[in-house]
Amino acid sequence: MPVDERFYTYKGPQSLRTLLDVCGLDTSVSADPEISSIAAAASAREGDICFFEGDPKRSMNVSASATACFVHDNAAGALPDGVTPVVVSHPRFAQKRASEELFELKSWTESGEAASIHETAKVAPSAVIGAGASIGEEAEIAPGVVIGPGVQIGARTKIGPNVSIRCALIGNDVTILAGASIGEAGFGVTAGPEGAEDVPQWGRVIIQDLVTIGANTCIDRGAFDDTIIGERTKIDNLVQIAHNVVIGRNVMMASFTGISGTSSIDDGVVMGGRVGIADHVHIGAGAQLAAASGIFRDIPAGETWGGSPARPLRQYLREIAWIQKQVAPKKKPK
Amino acid sequence: MPVDERFYTYKGPQSLRTLLDVCGLDTSVSADPEISSIAAAASAREGDICFFEGDPKRSMNVSASATACFVHDNAAGALPDGVTPVVVSHPRFAQKRASEELFELKSWTESGEAASIHETAKVAPSAVIGAGASIGEEAEIAPGVVIGPGVQIGARTKIGPNVSIRCALIGNDVTILAGASIGEAGFGVTAGPEGAEDVPQWGRVIIQDLVTIGANTCIDRGAFDDTIIGERTKIDNLVQIAHNVVIGRNVMMASFTGISGTSSIDDGVVMGGRVGIADHVHIGAGAQLAAASGIFRDIPAGETWGGSPARPLRQYLREIAWIQKQVAPKKKPK
Amino acid sequence: MPVDERFYTYKGPQSLRTLLDVCGLDTSVSADPEISSIAAAASAREGDICFFEGDPKRSMNVSASATACFVHDNAAGALPDGVTPVVVSHPRFAQKRASEELFELKSWTESGEAASIHETAKVAPSAVIGAGASIGEEAEIAPGVVIGPGVQIGARTKIGPNVSIRCALIGNDVTILAGASIGEAGFGVTAGPEGAEDVPQWGRVIIQDLVTIGANTCIDRGAFDDTIIGERTKIDNLVQIAHNVVIGRNVMMASFTGISGTSSIDDGVVMGGRVGIADHVHIGAGAQLAAASGIFRDIPAGETWGGSPARPLRQYLREIAWIQKQVAPKKKPK
Repeated sequence: MPVDERFYTYKGPQSLRTLLDVCGLDTSVSADPEISSIAAAASAREGDICFFEGDPKRSMNVSASATACFVHDNAAGALPDGVTPVVVSHPRFAQKRASEELFELKSWTESGEAASIHETAKVAPSAVIGAGASIGEEAEIAPGVVIGPGVQIGARTKIGPNVSIRCALIGNDVTILAGASIGEAGFGVTAGPEGAEDVPQWGRVIIQDLVTIGANTCIDRGAFDDTIIGERTKIDNLVQIAHNVVIGRNVMMASFTGISGTSSIDDGVVMGGRVGIADHVHIGAGAQLAAASGIFRDIPAGETWGGSPARPLRQYLREIAWIQKQVAPKKKPK
Repeated sequence: MPVDERFYTYKGPQSLRTLLDVCGLDTSVSADPEISSIAAAASAREGDICFFEGDPKRSMNVSASATACFVHDNAAGALPDGVTPVVVSHPRFAQKRASEELFELKSWTESGEAASIHETAKVAPSAVIGAGASIGEEAEIAPGVVIGPGVQIGARTKIGPNVSIRCALIGNDVTILAGASIGEAGFGVTAGPEGAEDVPQWGRVIIQDLVTIGANTCIDRGAFDDTIIGERTKIDNLVQIAHNVVIGRNVMMASFTGISGTSSIDDGVVMGGRVGIADHVHIGAGAQLAAASGIFRDIPAGETWGGSPARPLRQYLREIAWIQKQVAPKKKPK
Repeated sequence: MPVDERFYTYKGPQSLRTLLDVCGLDTSVSADPEISSIAAAASAREGDICFFEGDPKRSMNVSASATACFVHDNAAGALPDGVTPVVVSHPRFAQKRASEELFELKSWTESGEAASIHETAKVAPSAVIGAGASIGEEAEIAPGVVIGPGVQIGARTKIGPNVSIRCALIGNDVTILAGASIGEAGFGVTAGPEGAEDVPQWGRVIIQDLVTIGANTCIDRGAFDDTIIGERTKIDNLVQIAHNVVIGRNVMMASFTGISGTSSIDDGVVMGGRVGIADHVHIGAGAQLAAASGIFRDIPAGETWGGSPARPLRQYLREIAWIQKQVAPKKKPK
């Protein structure tokens, strides 16, 4: 997994033993290959260190191209040949630590080359534009906006007051209303030896042209990959979009909608208010999700679902009507 | 529809043909009257251009006073005499474009006459007060606040850090906590020839005396008319109030409550947390809505409702108890 | 109840009659003791004035150590000996007024002794640090952050852009993402003679080490006591935590979760998205609450609950399956 060096500093490859040492991981390894990056187990390539926490008898999906893999003791022998096992008590936590020695998120106040601001852009004096950021033609940046290092803002894009943006590429003609938070870390937690630990997030947010994002809405950057919002998608206030979510074009999302990590929403989907979508779910093109739906499974294209857990809207309405009939108030005898 | 020129620039009337030309709308019209404003079809007056997208055989509610009306081909003949038809593929989108040539939202950084700040008001140095805005006696404006051009803030009103306010008139003794976003565009989307398009919002937010607004809450300005929050209404954190909502006095709204567009809430209504109210719904005075209710219909004054879709709370509780009884865990045979 | 004078100014004790006079409360009292503070009725001590609004025949839980107590006319005779009754039309409102004469919240722009900023801390130039605040070793304060007077920020703690913090003590290694609002007033409303009145909040927020708080999340300060977030607890974006909530260690809270006032969550509880917890509820250690649960009662340690109102998850899933079976689409006859 390469990181985007506009947003992250790459500290360069390290030998496996050096890496374990700086991470404070006390374990012995059978070889000392060079580690240049981290990756998910299934897609790891040469130079990557990944992790595996499952039951090795049920599914050992570690790529044979991985250079090394953090594992529990019982899985070390099941790795593909050539993948150096690194036995630790908390494999996912160990990879988190390793990633923090390989990469570093640039801070909001990172110094560096001057931002590039188009001469026709209007930037309020109280806005803060990070090092190496770029602001396009006729863009408007309101007071109190904070743009992190390396962020790209397209032409005619308007950013409302007190919006913050980091680790993001924003297209042309985008509108972001007041108080939105774009590109903060997604919610990833793992167990370490001393309790809960944040999983670092090394991806980006990509917002395509003509997208509108409501006030106080949050869009988290990807963990490995990117969070993507497709062209002309319109997002209301107080919406939450988690890491790695991929949203197509012309999608409508009303207030309080929340999309959990790694879910994908195809073109033209329409969501009423307060729709919740679980993680790793796929919503087919043109589907309609009624207000307050709770979606825990894939929804076929073009269908209309409602309720929580959601079912086809017609079925959901029949259930409600049936229950009301069963429990109707007693009529007085004549 | 007149716009409030404290918040919008009125570019002046234009002849219909000029207006269509600058909007890039390629259609021929039978007359060339002067267009001074836009309006909803039913309430349009002389000088207004409105739009009609329905089935002309079922309901043709275009005011006979309208000067012109964007319509689909099949509705042109059904307009009242004297209303000039403008045949386009996307009537609502065409009106959006026309409105953008007649009016323009003043930007957050618009220059103009100096703001009027009462000598007893305390304004933090990092707050930004827009041109022509007014800050009342003993008002307190915290650091990071952004007040748009023309906004009026009453006496003794306290605005918390990083709040933004535009297109709004705020009364006396109002409290707005940190991060709230007041007066941003409501969520209105229409179909244009190339996909989803934002519908511009030309109204205001009116907040009456002694209102309290929680942290990170959003109150959108009206589309045509105003969004209004009545005296002493108390709103918790992370609440969403959409465009054109009208709320009475002494209303209580707990966290995560969302009120959709054009709904109205009468005096003394009490809402538990996470109540959702659909658009164009009316809640009668003194009604109580249980936490997590989903309200899709009018609620009579004084009643207590719950569930989603909501029904009278007593009925809702009976349904829950009945279901639990039907599906009670099997008792072991003695 | 003592107030933390880092956040509140204590105006000093006053005689009861003077206090009633400055509050504009026109009532006669049988004695004129010195009032130094306010308290809840059950825990009031010498010098405290409390209030009682219940039915004195059912439960008169006023501490015999209280110096005075606001009561309705019918309860005056039922107070313990030695507690001076103060008969008013709105006892809770009267206590609110009295508290405002005894204490005063320091404003965001309060002047006072310089903040103490560790030489290794990185504070963005546009951040505002209040009088008497303290910023620890290697802490990072992003642009647009507003830190109120007296706030303590621990070592290595990172505060994202446009976060605001007041009346709070923040530990070491804490991460607070963009736009969060920490320490604003909780949502407390009471009836006064002219309508709804805010109840002032005199407590604090305590955030222990290694806590992570998501973007645009709100954590309100306590009313009397403190709102507390325990070590390593991880909170997602757009979460609401009300006044006096006490959360243990290693608790996970996903987006849109809302915890109402005075509820307590023990160590290791895991909540899916959009969990709502009513006020004064206790969640036992290690309990798991499914996404969108509505919790209106105590949950025993280690159990898994779901639905709204929540029941054990297994029971909830059986109910859903049973209903779907009853209302299954009719099969066509063969």
